[in-house]
Order: sequence, then C-alpha cells, then structure tokens
Amino acid sequence: MRAAADMTSDLEISRRAVMKPITDIARAAGIPEEALELYGRYKAKIDPALVPARSTRGKVVLVTAMSPTPAGEGKSTVTVGLGDALAKAGANTVIALREPSLGPVLGMKGGATGGGWSQVVPMEDINLHFTGDFHAITTANNALTALLDNHIYQGNELGIDPRRITFRRVMDMNDRSLRDIVIGLGGPVQGVPRQDGFDITVASEIMAVFCLARDLADLKERLARITVGYTYDRRPVTVRDLGVEGALTLLLKDAVKPNLVQTLAGTPALVHGGPFANIAHGCNSVIATELARTVGDIVVTEAGFGADLGAEKYMDITSRAADVAPDAVVLVATIRALKMHGGVPKDRLSEPDFAALEAGTANLRRHIRNIARFGLSPVVAVNTFTTDTQEEVDWLLQWCAGEGVAAAAADVWANGGGESGGDALAAKVLEALEEPADFHHLYPLDVPVEEKIRTVVRDIYGADDVEFSLPALRRLEEIKAGGWDSLPVCMAKTQYSFSDNADLLGAPTGFTVHVRDLILKTGAGFVVALTGAVMTMPGLPKAPAAMRMDVAADGTPSGLS
Amino acid sequence: MRAAADMTSDLEISRRAVMKPITDIARAAGIPEEALELYGRYKAKIDPALVPARSTRGKVVLVTAMSPTPAGEGKSTVTVGLGDALAKAGANTVIALREPSLGPVLGMKGGATGGGWSQVVPMEDINLHFTGDFHAITTANNALTALLDNHIYQGNELGIDPRRITFRRVMDMNDRSLRDIVIGLGGPVQGVPRQDGFDITVASEIMAVFCLARDLADLKERLARITVGYTYDRRPVTVRDLGVEGALTLLLKDAVKPNLVQTLAGTPALVHGGPFANIAHGCNSVIATELARTVGDIVVTEAGFGADLGAEKYMDITSRAADVAPDAVVLVATIRALKMHGGVPKDRLSEPDFAALEAGTANLRRHIRNIARFGLSPVVAVNTFTTDTQEEVDWLLQWCAGEGVAAAAADVWANGGGESGGDALAAKVLEALEEPADFHHLYPLDVPVEEKIRTVVRDIYGADDVEFSLPALRRLEEIKAGGWDSLPVCMAKTQYSFSDNADLLGAPTGFTVHVRDLILKTGAGFVVALTGAVMTMPGLPKAPAAMRMDVAADGTPSGLS
Repeated sequence: MRAAADMTSDLEISRRAVMKPITDIARAAGIPEEALELYGRYKAKIDPALVPARSTRGKVVLVTAMSPTPAGEGKSTVTVGLGDALAKAGANTVIALREPSLGPVLGMKGGATGGGWSQVVPMEDINLHFTGDFHAITTANNALTALLDNHIYQGNELGIDPRRITFRRVMDMNDRSLRDIVIGLGGPVQGVPRQDGFDITVASEIMAVFCLARDLADLKERLARITVGYTYDRRPVTVRDLGVEGALTLLLKDAVKPNLVQTLAGTPALVHGGPFANIAHGCNSVIATELARTVGDIVVTEAGFGADLGAEKYMDITSRAADVAPDAVVLVATIRALKMHGGVPKDRLSEPDFAALEAGTANLRRHIRNIARFGLSPVVAVNTFTTDTQEEVDWLLQWCAGEGVAAAAADVWANGGGESGGDALAAKVLEALEEPADFHHLYPLDVPVEEKIRTVVRDIYGADDVEFSLPALRRLEEIKAGGWDSLPVCMAKTQYSFSDNADLLGAPTGFTVHVRDLILKTGAGFVVALTGAVMTMPGLPKAPAAMRMDVAADGTPSGLS
Repeated sequence: MRAAADMTSDLEISRRAVMKPITDIARAAGIPEEALELYGRYKAKIDPALVPARSTRGKVVLVTAMSPTPAGEGKSTVTVGLGDALAKAGANTVIALREPSLGPVLGMKGGATGGGWSQVVPMEDINLHFTGDFHAITTANNALTALLDNHIYQGNELGIDPRRITFRRVMDMNDRSLRDIVIGLGGPVQGVPRQDGFDITVASEIMAVFCLARDLADLKERLARITVGYTYDRRPVTVRDLGVEGALTLLLKDAVKPNLVQTLAGTPALVHGGPFANIAHGCNSVIATELARTVGDIVVTEAGFGADLGAEKYMDITSRAADVAPDAVVLVATIRALKMHGGVPKDRLSEPDFAALEAGTANLRRHIRNIARFGLSPVVAVNTFTTDTQEEVDWLLQWCAGEGVAAAAADVWANGGGESGGDALAAKVLEALEEPADFHHLYPLDVPVEEKIRTVVRDIYGADDVEFSLPALRRLEEIKAGGWDSLPVCMAKTQYSFSDNADLLGAPTGFTVHVRDLILKTGAGFVVALTGAVMTMPGLPKAPAAMRMDVAADGTPSGLS
C-alpha cells in the first residue's frame, strides 16, 4: 500500500500523473486517427461512425453496489481500478463511465472521477467543463423551454395550458432557490406568468434521451417524442408539435460523440453522459458503451446507486435500448457499509464489530439474490478502506465463500489496479466471464406498467406489495389509454434502503412501497414511478466545496478532490 | 462578382470551403505548437504565455460603423474581408472578433460570423457552442448567484439584503419569460423568496470582466471586486466578501485562452469573448487583441454598434485596460443606411435616391468628426450590396473625397477579401497606417463621472446637454463617496440614433440626453449610464431561426445563416 495515498488529494495524485497523449491511447485501442476530434492533448471526442466494426464485440462487466451509505462505497474507484487490473492482466479493456455533474462538484463532492490511485484523468478537466456535453444538454433543454414559452407568448396556436407545462428549465448547478419560481412577470411584453422551476441538468429528460439514443437519428426521434405539457383540452404537447426537434438535435450533434480519456494507468476510458439514477436510469450513454464494445474485448461500466436501482435499470431499461446487456456483474461492498446496515452509527464505523458486520450481510445477500434474478452471478468486490482490519476483510471473503459467491478484496484506492490492488478482483471477473451467462430481463414489456412496478417492488425490493396513490392510479389509466403501457418502468426511490423509507437499512421485510405519482417520459421511453420525495435540484451545503477551490496565476487548480 | 453568393447561404459557402488544419494556420502565424490546445481539426485555444514576444507589436485597425439601421451594415463582414485583403496584399494580418451569442443565433440572426465570401469558419461550430467559453461564463455567473443565495439561506452572516441584490442570473438564450421572476418559493427549505431575473450571458459583468482582464491574475482580482448587492445597512457586498473568486476563476481558466480559427481565405482569426455593446464595452477580449499584436503585424478588430458607442468605448475603456489603442480606424458605411438616415423608409432602400443619400451623409460626417476627436482620421469603407448602383457608390466616394476623408468601396461579401473585393480598402488602410497616429482618449480619468458623461454626450452625440434623473443624481453622489469617480463611463444608449431617441436618425441637434440611472460595475471597472430602456434579456421572434434549423443523420447542419 502506498502511504502517499493517505496524505495526497485526488487532485494532487492526478496532477502528478504522466499522461500519455490521447492519440497514443486511441492508437493502442485501435481507434483510427480520423475518428478523433482532439480537445487539447488529453481528451478527444470519437465519431463512432468512423470506427470500424470487428467480428467480435466486447463483453460487458457491470459494476454495481450494495445499498449505499453516506460513508461512500467507492464504486467509480472500483470500476477504474478493475479496468486497470484487467488491462494489466492482458485483456483489451475499455472503461465506460458517466461524466460528473458540475453542481455536486461545486457543492459537496469536489469531484467524481474515481479516487486515490484509481482515477480517470485529467481530473480537473473532467470535473469542470470537460468537452461541454452537459452545457450542450443544458442549452438544448433551455432552448426548448424558451421556444415553448415563446409559442405561448406569440399567440399559443397549439392551445398549451401554461398551468400544465411539465417540462422544466435546467442548470448544471446546485441551486435550491430555483426549485420553485414564478416566471413571466413584469407585464404584457415580458411573457406569460406561470409557475416553473429549474432541475439540475442531469435530471433533464434530454439527458436521459441523450444516454439512451443509439445515434443522431434515434436522438432526434426521441427528442421529438418528449412531452412538454398539455393543452387546455388535456391533449399532450410534444417537441414534434412545436417543430423544434431539428434545432435541439443540432445543438447536441457534437455532444453525442463519446469522450475518450485515460486512467492513471493509461487504460482507455469513455466518459460520456450522466443521467440521474432516481428519475432516470443512471448510467453513461449507450453510444459510449456500444463504442467500447466495438474497440475493447472487455468493457467495464457502472450503474448509479445500489443494485436495486442502478443495476435493475441497467438490465430492464438500458439493455433494452441497446445491445449492452451485461456478461458479468461486480457488486461492490465495504466493511463500513455492512456495519452501517448492521446497525452501527456513522461515527463509529471505524471500530471492529463482527456482530454488526454479520447483521449487515443481510443487505448484501439480497443484492446477490437480486442479480441472480437476471440470470447472472455477481462477483463481490470488497473495496478496502484504510480503517478496515485484515480480519474483517477475511471474514467477509469467507462469508461470500460460504454463500457460494465469488469475491475478492480490491485495494485499488491505495494501490491502483495498474499496480497490484485489483489483481485478485480481475482474476475473479475473468473467471466469471468464462462462465456462460444466461441474462434475461426481470419482466416482459407486454404486461401493464402497474404489474411491472409490482414485480420490481416484490422481487427486487422484497416488499409485500405496492400501493398507488389516487393521482398515481389516475396516471396508470392515462398511460393505458395513451398506449404507453408497454414501456419499462424507472423507479425513483431512496438509494439508502430497499424500501421507500431511507431509515430502513439492512434487508427490511413486511413493508409496502408507496407510489405517489407517475411521470411518463415519452422521449426517454420509460415511466418514472415516484416513491417518496425525489430531489431534482440539490442545494449547496453550508460550506460548499467551491469555497476551497482556487487557481494560481499559471493555471494550476486547487481544491478539487 | 460571384453570382453564386446571391444564391448560396452563408452556411453552404462555409461548408464548401476547404479549411486548412488549424495547426497549419498557427504555424504560418508563428504560434508555436506547444501553445496550441486543439478543439477538433479547425479550432484551437492558444495559451498566450507560451507565445514568444517579438521586438515589434502589431498595429491595430479598429473597424466601426455609422449609426446602424435594421438593414444591417455588415461590419463583421468588412472586418473579415479587410483582414483577408490585407493578408493578400502581403501583410502579416490577424483578425480579432467577438464570439457569437447563441441566443440571437437561435432567435433572429441564425449566425454572426461575417457573411458571403467573408466569413470565419467553421461557422456552424463558432455559432453554436464553439469552445465553450460562453458556457463557462454562464456557469461562473450562476455559480456566484447560487453561492450568494446559499449564503443568505445558510444564515446570512454578511447581512445581505435580499431586496438589494444587483447581480442577476444569466443564460445564453433569448428568453423573455426569465426577465422578471420570483425565486425561492416553496417554503423554508427551498431558499429565501426574492425578486430576481436572468440576463443574457453577454450582459453579465463576468463577460465584461473576462474581456477586459489581461491575464488570469487580473481576472481573479476583477472578479473579486464585483459588487453583487448591498447589506441591510447599505454597505456593498463583493465577490471577495463571499470568498468565491478562486472558484469563479477556476471555472474560467481555460475559457480565457483565445480561440484560433481561420477565414474562408485562410487568414488567422482570434474569436474570443463578446460583451454587450450597450451595458458593456462591446469588443472581443483584450487578451485576444494583445495576442494578435504579439503574432501579427496588423490586427483588424471590431467594436459593437456605431462609432458613437463601440468606438468611443474602445478608445476610452478598452484602450485603458490594455495596450490595444488603435493606429487606424475603418468606418463602415452603406448606401442603404445613408438613405435611411436621409429619411427613406426601410422597404424602399433599394430605389436610387440621391437626395436622401446626401441628407444621410450628415450621420456619416458626424462619425468622421468624432473619430478625429481621438486624434485619428478614419478610412470610410463603403460596404456594397447587390441593390446598390455603381452611380451611388461613386457618388459616395466622391463625397468622401470632398470631405478630405480616405474612402474605398468594399465588395467583400460577394467577392471575398482573398479575391479582389477588399483590395481598394486594404490599400487605403495601409496608407493610413503609414501616417503618424496621434491617439488620445476623449476625457481624462480624473474628472468626475458626471463630467465624463457630459463630455461624451456633447462631443460625440452632439447633444446640448445631459439631464440626470433623481436616482441617477443619488448614484453620482454614491460613486463620489465610494471613491469610484475616477472610473471611465460606459454609455447604454440606443444604437440607432446619436440621441437617446431611436427615431432621431441622421445627425440630430438641439436635444438633451436623459440619464435615468447609473450602474457601478466595480469588477469591469466602469460606470454604466442608462439612457432610455436597455434590454438585457432579448426575446424570441414569432418565427425563431431555430424553427428552420436541423441536422442530418450524418451530422450535416442546416438552417444557420
């Protein structure tokens, strides 16, 4: 273990790294130079149309996790470290990750590009504006809302009811003041007053559409299908009705090309798109994952939140939108998270507590069982922290063996996958990829949305049943009447619990999940089921990460982590 | 004259152009490869710190215009065409231009990169997201407002009065619905309700600061000085008080590097920054102009609106912020604009009318006189349109000769400067550059702001006097008391008239200019004097240009112009 990792910030580690020119990374990955659009020396956009197909396509390793805790499970760190370790083992590996959202970077996180010695770089670029994809999505979203309000102002030919507009403005910022606003004030020449609000960009349906579209033509068609609101006589109004899908697609024409960067160990990584994992499906663009399969023999990708949310959506939504079904699943667990699910409060997670550890395995066991419902057997990755003892890690590996589940410790934060920190995990994953996969979706599409939700809630969450509010029941009827009953469902639920109550840790039973409302996302092509409150615009904390950020006169950044 | 130009859209012309790799353009301009950060093949950011100084610095040619009319004077087209013609004549020429704002591109304009055979390319990139500079400025602006509202929400240690916040949010969009809004609604956890509004990004003080800063350190210092509002006891609150100038500068660290592109004729062009020409100073970044002087023997740059606004600000604000004072001035005039100033309505500008033409020269004459007040003698560029007759153009050149002013017709739209359309103009400009320049500012800084405004209004606008409203008089006292009386002034006035009444065309006399309010821009370092209504957030027209925009499945754009 490198002691330096304890003392050194992620930004410092990443800045000390000697990066290879991105042209070298691309060449080694078999990406032809004419497919590259350079953004400086260490970033490039790739035009997938200019990358030749191979006779085989890479296998997909999906990295997911047990139910997350505020302690943090390091899923991106494991994804990067595993990719590096697979590359070190000789496999032609490509990593596919989401882009960080600037709002949380300026708020709590300070960065979202892995950590320690398992990072994608250049981290300061990726964490800030990167190649501008999120800005393009923000712009497309707000061009749509400006054109929509302008339509109403200029005579409202379509008869749009300003009280029934469902499509909101967005900003890639944590800005609670914009959650509920009134716009169009100031008199007749300033627009039409109405209630509105901003979501964070990653919550935009355009972000979801962007990440599910297979190419530019599919993107335009999905954008055209987005419902923006309803007319006075309750008919849905789409982007196609407004006639602006061409302009929106034009605004996204460069953004849809995946971004190539590298890990600290020089493994190629496609970092592209980043939809919310609650009201959307929470993984990088399918264009990037498909491109990764075209050039790599193994693709390591990641899904947001725990396996009950991210992995389920990957299997039932993403894997239906494109040919990206997983061949293996890695389930990240940590000693600290297990203890917390076993009842230990957050400030005492560093103390050894085998009783709590054992109790906490109930959460892990349910996630393992859930993965099996998709025909896959996971590899448990025990992401080790400096506060873990060797006895605890050994105990957990032993427990996994007793459950008949492959498992390995991953020391990739302190000791990158390019060194030896991910060797054991990589070996287990390579074994898992040798086994025949029997992937299938959890539910068929041709059952009603209500049944799909019930299946997820019972089979994945372990609930007794689902209860729909009156508005949700009305929505179910509208969905049926509108011919949308064959869409998959996208659950918006707290990530901290299998239930819809964030305080029920471990593996709760005997509970009912309450669906308070449903949102039809006709562009993305799924129905969001809202359980509990879902935050679509975060706020800044009392001491935002931005307060610590700075840049020297020579351009050297500080305060990113 | 190429007949094709009549029939072909700007986008089609630009797409048919065979661009050189931007690395070739840079090499020819003497910009070392290590200073380049490529953004695809045809765009690059330049790090000025890595460009070696020469023993001489390029001379600056400022392109400005007579009072604009809705017919359009083609100032950018002349700037590009002149640059090409100077390069064709053998001069080592670099063009420096503003970046287009996306809002007007989606609204009326469809594009802002010159026209016909005098364009900077790739026009679709420059007109859309380009290298992301405006997105970075938008983000820095809205990070500041989010941090400001968060400060109030989290306890308001500084005692900021939510009713006295002067710094607004921005969006690079024409969105009238956001001009007047109420934010922070929804209850105690959603922020503090207050009146707010969005300006378009080019109206942000951060844009002005960005374009006046000489380097990253100067940028941070100027950002720190920005006033965001006032406390309950009326003390100003600055970015430095909030402690976030480091984060804002970090968000702008790449954006401050000028962007290199090329003209259709292959002349290097630095396209960087773009502040409003009313509430700000209306020209590209001084970092870009200084870099252009470092590498080029002649720099052709442009100032927004007519010479009474853009040129005056260039001389009195921009030329004080950096070493970019003009060595020659080109004053763009058109037959159509002269007729309009001579009393012809817009729909009859294509008909020959020598009486109106003669009457309209009153406007041109006053601009010529004004340029002389800065110690410079302009070259009049008659930008020819296909509706002009040869007799009209000859008459105007004759008139200029009679006034003792250098003049040439510029046919650069139909017949680019790389061909022969700008030869005559380039010859006159080269002659003008041989003459000794005696540049000086209009007013010294050590007279009160009130006197500076009076000087501009009398000497440049031709008004009898200036009248200050009661709020403006109060502001003048605050400016004096705050020690800001030594700042230059930035007039916000209609561009259509020398007066503050847009309908008074030609060269009005016997009028008074009414200053209704003053805005102290402590970061940009000027005092904005508001005359009449100033629009800081445009609206979309009934048929926005966005409705015509599209992109084919292979990425080919259409509908930009």
